[in-house]
Amino acid sequence: MTKNLLEETCRKIKPQNSEARAKARTRLECLTMPRWALGRLMDLAEDLAGMTGSLQPQVSRRVIVTMAGDHGVTREGVSLYPSEVTAQMVHNFARGGAGINALARTARASVLIVDMGVAGDLSALEREKKIVSRKIAPGTENFAKGAAMTREQARQSVETGIEIALDMAERADIVGTGDMGIGNTTPSAAIACALTGLAPDAIAGRGTGLNEEQRKKKVAVIEEGIKINRPDANDALDVLSKVGGFEIGGIAGLILGAAAMRKPVIIDGFISTAAALVARGLCPQAMDFVVASHLSEEQGHALMLKALNKRALLDLNLRLGEGTGAALAMNLVEAAARVLSEVATFQEAQVSQAS
Amino acid sequence: MTKNLLEETCRKIKPQNSEARAKARTRLECLTMPRWALGRLMDLAEDLAGMTGSLQPQVSRRVIVTMAGDHGVTREGVSLYPSEVTAQMVHNFARGGAGINALARTARASVLIVDMGVAGDLSALEREKKIVSRKIAPGTENFAKGAAMTREQARQSVETGIEIALDMAERADIVGTGDMGIGNTTPSAAIACALTGLAPDAIAGRGTGLNEEQRKKKVAVIEEGIKINRPDANDALDVLSKVGGFEIGGIAGLILGAAAMRKPVIIDGFISTAAALVARGLCPQAMDFVVASHLSEEQGHALMLKALNKRALLDLNLRLGEGTGAALAMNLVEAAARVLSEVATFQEAQVSQAS
Repeated sequence: MTKNLLEETCRKIKPQNSEARAKARTRLECLTMPRWALGRLMDLAEDLAGMTGSLQPQVSRRVIVTMAGDHGVTREGVSLYPSEVTAQMVHNFARGGAGINALARTARASVLIVDMGVAGDLSALEREKKIVSRKIAPGTENFAKGAAMTREQARQSVETGIEIALDMAERADIVGTGDMGIGNTTPSAAIACALTGLAPDAIAGRGTGLNEEQRKKKVAVIEEGIKINRPDANDALDVLSKVGGFEIGGIAGLILGAAAMRKPVIIDGFISTAAALVARGLCPQAMDFVVASHLSEEQGHALMLKALNKRALLDLNLRLGEGTGAALAMNLVEAAARVLSEVATFQEAQVSQAS
Repeated sequence: MTKNLLEETCRKIKPQNSEARAKARTRLECLTMPRWALGRLMDLAEDLAGMTGSLQPQVSRRVIVTMAGDHGVTREGVSLYPSEVTAQMVHNFARGGAGINALARTARASVLIVDMGVAGDLSALEREKKIVSRKIAPGTENFAKGAAMTREQARQSVETGIEIALDMAERADIVGTGDMGIGNTTPSAAIACALTGLAPDAIAGRGTGLNEEQRKKKVAVIEEGIKINRPDANDALDVLSKVGGFEIGGIAGLILGAAAMRKPVIIDGFISTAAALVARGLCPQAMDFVVASHLSEEQGHALMLKALNKRALLDLNLRLGEGTGAALAMNLVEAAARVLSEVATFQEAQVSQAS
């Protein structure tokens, strides 16, 4: 791994291209339709021009990167599912039988599955090249008892995500983020609280289906984790190491890597948004390349998106993760790109304008 | 044209298949994800099973039918654009340069353009087989001065839509509706008011960009049209003939034809929703096959969807028509179908279930 890959990557991240944005806006305003009649698709088209620097943004090569990891905090009883399910679901991804596989087909996207820190043995899948293994450790430590990982592991998880993004330079125009990790709404909520100051009770939701009593327990676990670990809101690597997860750090790195390559990165729901908050802590400018795909059913996601100053494209009561929301939004990104590059202007089409 | 095609079609429309719905629900509840974690996609998947009677609903052959017509009521100054734009935009559709062309490509749908009553001469496009001509008359009459069309023309417009739907039996699994007609938010609002009793001031919006003063004028025109024509809320053909439009009747017929074939019909925004209200007046059961694609920016659309008891899938501030919202929603329909037919159950994938 390159020394200081994280710092080097952050240095490469520059704002959107304002000239391309302005040119895109001028063209969009002359398209054969009432002014800005395709609403948020046109906002997105302007963004795509700013990100890619092109009035013909390429979005045809699509990859969903689904990062998996396990969480020591599940020992506190924060999830209805046992940790083994993380590895079982990675097998399900590899066989093409999960939600993300079905939705990636709809999006004409490939799915890259990365083991960032699954507790189970996935070596057979690695040998069959069904997954990429970048396992940092077999699950994090229980953050209710101490730090989830070392600072070095936190850095390693983010730099792994950056490397995976950079590896795709020649075969992806846009990247979607996804996650798999039993218990990972708990570290995601903890990260959001640590970085934004929002209260655990406002952010922590029912996850895979907790009842209110179980949710209150989860809130208490997050409060305890923040109390004993004292994550520093001004140091995103510190927050990630104290209360985070390997797949969350990986997704933060993916976002930074995509931003450094000036490629749009479509974030999925609750977990990916926590990762985006980490990425913003490391490099605020990276947010110029982030598209929020959907508003999750999970309590607190709306507040996290607000903290990120992003508005989701879709609101379909999803609460699955895996990258499913990102996959659904990819067709909207394609639509926006096509509006910019394929719709004729009034002049080109010889259509009369409004009086 | 078959005698009594309208009545025959309505007789063929039956409710959704409740057995297929129940089987779909049972399967969806066992998929490898927390219960109903794909939210509204799963609701839609259950609907698709009920419509098609299949747990493997086919949605790959997609057609957007964009129906065009002109409106005599434009003589009251209800639109910023001159009527000539309807024909100019049909030329733009035929060349592939409009919003609907770009978005249909994203949806992998073909676009069928039907001249239901455009005032301009489109015979060249018809000869080149770029459009289908079913022109009932070169535009409706001005409904502020009398009926928009005869009752016989209203029936003809609906039966034309039915015929076009039936013609696609062998080449479309799902149908999207679209419209083009300068001034057609005015008859659409008038239809909604006449059929639901809602006030013109609540329904009539800014259309292609009216200011508030111009919108108030439009409200007054609708009030006058309803006052002098006295459309009968219990007779949808009467409402269509008094204050409707040829393309709106055509879309109502498309909905009925699709429902008779038990195929999902994805309605676009404001104009298509007015047409759905007409279709419901003719055959309430047809609504079992209607999917609402998006919530329009146009004032009143939310109330119209509520009257129809439908919730839109998308909310992207669109106000273009043409079928653009329907095209965007088609990928969500594909996603829902794939979730039902491609995602493995816990048992199939050998994944542990929740405690």
